[in-house]
Amino acid sequence: MDLYELCALTRTVRRFREALGIDPSVVLGILEAASLAPCAANLQELRYMTVLDERRRAELFPLLSWAGYLRDWPGPSAGERPPCYIVILAPTEENPFTRTDAGIAAGYVVLSARAAGLGACILMGFDRGRMRELLDPPDGMSPLLVIALGEPAEEVRLETAGRGGSLEYWRDTEGVHHVPKLPVSDLIIN
Amino acid sequence: MDLYELCALTRTVRRFREALGIDPSVVLGILEAASLAPCAANLQELRYMTVLDERRRAELFPLLSWAGYLRDWPGPSAGERPPCYIVILAPTEENPFTRTDAGIAAGYVVLSARAAGLGACILMGFDRGRMRELLDPPDGMSPLLVIALGEPAEEVRLETAGRGGSLEYWRDTEGVHHVPKLPVSDLIIN
Repeated sequence: MDLYELCALTRTVRRFREALGIDPSVVLGILEAASLAPCAANLQELRYMTVLDERRRAELFPLLSWAGYLRDWPGPSAGERPPCYIVILAPTEENPFTRTDAGIAAGYVVLSARAAGLGACILMGFDRGRMRELLDPPDGMSPLLVIALGEPAEEVRLETAGRGGSLEYWRDTEGVHHVPKLPVSDLIIN
Repeated sequence: MDLYELCALTRTVRRFREALGIDPSVVLGILEAASLAPCAANLQELRYMTVLDERRRAELFPLLSWAGYLRDWPGPSAGERPPCYIVILAPTEENPFTRTDAGIAAGYVVLSARAAGLGACILMGFDRGRMRELLDPPDGMSPLLVIALGEPAEEVRLETAGRGGSLEYWRDTEGVHHVPKLPVSDLIIN
């Protein structure tokens, strides 16, 4: 598969085949790829926690916001929840590059997950204080991003957004998730 | 090439074969990949400027900081400068996810560049005010990241950083650039 195709197939997945679980060695491979990502001044300040344990996942799940535009959908139900989370920890005292570093690494994670046949969802909306309490990271570190991982249990389709049209993703009556993306010509300003 | 291998080979390149230039259609392909990156709430707020014109590149170059740890090296000399820059523009009024979005997109850019046989360098250190003046982006948008692109003119080698050892990249007497990376086992906290 070429990389462009991989980027096109790497869609955000919010429903998973939870019972299938996840192979921890695949998760390790994904983190190995992320560890090779470039970062500001090569400081490598990000750290990773993995949450695979069922009880721990059940504690983490309610802290997450899943899909702002699907107003009647509270998030994946039991059986469709992610069998794994990767939490990206960053220094609590951020520098101007911290979130960029985390984004680069998260991009590497979701592409690596897709290359391994998995789906992923980068979750940026959660209560950082409560997440910190739950995960108890080392002093000076805080959870910045949570990435849900697992075998996808939903189909996600890209579609072209019209200029000025809605960018809200939506789910059709058959459960297919649609994501309007602006054409690249609308994104390039020269 | 599998994705892990691509991640390992995607090293930051700071010297380029400037005279070779760059194929604009390759740059477009890279931006198409970036346009498919996930982003917070699918808002797609990032925009891209490409700078290929020689005069424009000469104006942009002095605004950039190249390699903090190579204290005697002011950056690439004429002939080794990038034949192309991609500037990622973001809303001047950032939200908490802006820099993460930019990081994800930048990760897609550097991986896509490497997949196309090019080298890249994400530059985060520049005077945003002066860059804004030079590029004159649309109202409400500001340059957030600059990515230099071109055919690599240097060899970059990963090496394993010792625990507590230096993370500063360095260049040997033969001009090979060495980058100490922490082993993934040092990055995972569970």
